[in-house]
Amino acid sequence: MDATRLEWLSAADAARAIREGSISSEQLVDACLARIEAVEPAVQAWQFLDPAYAREQARARDLDRMMGRSIGALHGVPVGIKDVFDTGDMPTEDGTVLHAGRMPERDATVVAMLRAAGAVIMGKTVTTECATYMPGKTRNPHNPEHTPGGSSSGSAAAVAAGMVPLALGSQTNGSVIRPAAFCGVYGFKPTHGLIPRHGVLKLSRTLDQIGMFGRTLEDVALLAEQLTGHDERDPDTRPRAQIPFVATAASEPPLPPKLAFIKTPVWDRVDADTPEAFAELVAALGSHCAEHVLPDSLRDAWDWHRTIMEAEMAWNLDLEWEKGRDRLSESLRAQLARGRAVGALDYQKALGRIANLNEGFAELLAVHDAVLTPSAPGTAPRLEATGDPAFCTLWTLCGMPAVTLPLMNGANGLPLGVQLVGARGDDARLLRTARWLVAQVQAG
Amino acid sequence: MDATRLEWLSAADAARAIREGSISSEQLVDACLARIEAVEPAVQAWQFLDPAYAREQARARDLDRMMGRSIGALHGVPVGIKDVFDTGDMPTEDGTVLHAGRMPERDATVVAMLRAAGAVIMGKTVTTECATYMPGKTRNPHNPEHTPGGSSSGSAAAVAAGMVPLALGSQTNGSVIRPAAFCGVYGFKPTHGLIPRHGVLKLSRTLDQIGMFGRTLEDVALLAEQLTGHDERDPDTRPRAQIPFVATAASEPPLPPKLAFIKTPVWDRVDADTPEAFAELVAALGSHCAEHVLPDSLRDAWDWHRTIMEAEMAWNLDLEWEKGRDRLSESLRAQLARGRAVGALDYQKALGRIANLNEGFAELLAVHDAVLTPSAPGTAPRLEATGDPAFCTLWTLCGMPAVTLPLMNGANGLPLGVQLVGARGDDARLLRTARWLVAQVQAG
Repeated sequence: MDATRLEWLSAADAARAIREGSISSEQLVDACLARIEAVEPAVQAWQFLDPAYAREQARARDLDRMMGRSIGALHGVPVGIKDVFDTGDMPTEDGTVLHAGRMPERDATVVAMLRAAGAVIMGKTVTTECATYMPGKTRNPHNPEHTPGGSSSGSAAAVAAGMVPLALGSQTNGSVIRPAAFCGVYGFKPTHGLIPRHGVLKLSRTLDQIGMFGRTLEDVALLAEQLTGHDERDPDTRPRAQIPFVATAASEPPLPPKLAFIKTPVWDRVDADTPEAFAELVAALGSHCAEHVLPDSLRDAWDWHRTIMEAEMAWNLDLEWEKGRDRLSESLRAQLARGRAVGALDYQKALGRIANLNEGFAELLAVHDAVLTPSAPGTAPRLEATGDPAFCTLWTLCGMPAVTLPLMNGANGLPLGVQLVGARGDDARLLRTARWLVAQVQAG
Repeated sequence: MDATRLEWLSAADAARAIREGSISSEQLVDACLARIEAVEPAVQAWQFLDPAYAREQARARDLDRMMGRSIGALHGVPVGIKDVFDTGDMPTEDGTVLHAGRMPERDATVVAMLRAAGAVIMGKTVTTECATYMPGKTRNPHNPEHTPGGSSSGSAAAVAAGMVPLALGSQTNGSVIRPAAFCGVYGFKPTHGLIPRHGVLKLSRTLDQIGMFGRTLEDVALLAEQLTGHDERDPDTRPRAQIPFVATAASEPPLPPKLAFIKTPVWDRVDADTPEAFAELVAALGSHCAEHVLPDSLRDAWDWHRTIMEAEMAWNLDLEWEKGRDRLSESLRAQLARGRAVGALDYQKALGRIANLNEGFAELLAVHDAVLTPSAPGTAPRLEATGDPAFCTLWTLCGMPAVTLPLMNGANGLPLGVQLVGARGDDARLLRTARWLVAQVQAG
């Protein structure tokens, strides 16, 4: 094995190699740290990184193995953590000066789960301000003049740049799918309520969802498999049987999949390249894919999402507003001001729509394996902003599982993501359908 | 058995007698119908009653038994249903002319559960307008110049007057505990989320809770035991093991119970008789009871309750407001107008308080078996209104189980209720503590 390329190993391969003893966690972490040293000046993915502490964790994992202790599914594999997840051993600053130097006492539930799986917590990746719109310092690894997307900017960029094989993110609108698409990696946001959110910056109980980044589909499945579970401190999680993400994602669909291509009411926002790219993809899929037109009434769903997001953000960031709104960005301040003005009646009406929307999508997905739709209007725009989340909004509102696949490129050479959206709770099947689609495209 | 007194049998005794064949359901229902005929002109407990149909159900239950079919725990026992519970075979008008003649297609979940337990659905009892404040026609069986309380006015009065041994009610503020106390019967409102609310008039998901009326503690336990369960259509219910209400309520406390007497910040609203009555009760309980003073900050909880109730009512009754607010009472219209003006931020802040309150009460109830407090400021006031729910508000807000016991009387001879409140989820123990208290008082 070429040790100079260890940083490009998939997480699954790396975990296997560590388990078998063909590489050590320390070698892997060293390779990733060397890669970070080389490209971080251009990419700026990390908010907090202590190379010595990362190596110390790696050596401890190597010692576990030598001592014959039990080995987790991610044993010795470094993972980047978006800086909105509490870590008991590293600062968690949420992308705002208001939380500068904040040192949580305890890990977020998912960080603890990662440690239990043997992962090395590599460091904290850059988030936009409070996981909303104001960009951090991170740049797109494919072109530093372009945005990596947001809000999970650092996680997407770090995985894309070979700094870590895996990273955690969170999505309240398009904060996992969009940066993954812009950076040309796999991004996966499971069903709302599948992954516990305790210890993660709270913006919106209704919309906040945890997601993950990897350079292979198997890797996002592997990471997802470590993170589902019940946590009484996240009232939207439920006790449930373990989901075999990796095995299901690796299996063949029992029947030829059927995809519903949906343009959504925000199709008028797509870039010049996107319609042709998707028309070609849909044509290549032939009988496996047909366009489905959403009822016109769904046009309002983007407003419902905004009402809920802004109203719930106003509550969750009430202290920040009261004590330090002058140190928030103008755009976040405007969002919070709008949220503070939302009426409880409009808020409840918007919440009440979610169940109706889901009824409609459950019917559609009873006869289709997944929705096929762009991950973003096009490729990553230039640096000023993190891009438009509109192609994620509907699916985030519905809490449906979504995955973005780095299958295409724009005329500018930057990655163009393909998004698949599945039925709520049918997450592993979505990854199986995604794997089938990747194989179709690569064979085509 | 004296057939002329069948209407005063407890539900437990009646079910036993029917099971053993010493009486028939038809005899029991006939006795109750005769009692209704005699006292309904004065009490006015029924919104809908079809004596022939009640007898038909009773004969069908008698036939079940003769044919050797399985016999439910309430087989052949008539139950009154507050007219906010959907019944697929009787109108459900919710106490408002806007729903006059409304004929649901299906039973509410709990009505279906009652049928499964073999109960005879006797008829629909009077509710105040939309289960809020505007009184219906019902009068207090102890004195027709006085209110039966509300909003479950007919259910409380019907049980108190010997028309049915059991009845269902609902509580969003004080709508079970208050009328039960005013009518001198047992009223029980289990923990929020224990009893499914699908098919019941929705005012407030956060506050709406189902309760029951009986003339013995065993009877409310027996009814509660039939009604707990998981229903996916009520998102606040959870799968859980069956709760042995009857057996637990009948058992002896393993240790001498300890009660916390709480006056609450609304103590200044009590009637003249109440302080002395409770001082005597607390004194008689000696070392079993000590006064506990709530922190002054809890004074705001009544505002939080109102904010939540009115905001959620405004949403749930939005159609009634839009289409027919001129046909609502002035008081309900004013409530809805206030609810429509609540801000989403204040609403979420109020919701967010509930968990904090419950943490405090969980600590208190880790070292006490129950809270002892008045069920209402005093005895039933005169007819104009249904009385003040303030002594129920805090416990309803917290979703804690509460039971009212007809242990005392005011100087006017009307019943004065004693309320016990337990820890969330510890419902059966609350009834056991209540039974102990009843025995103490009756022995004293």
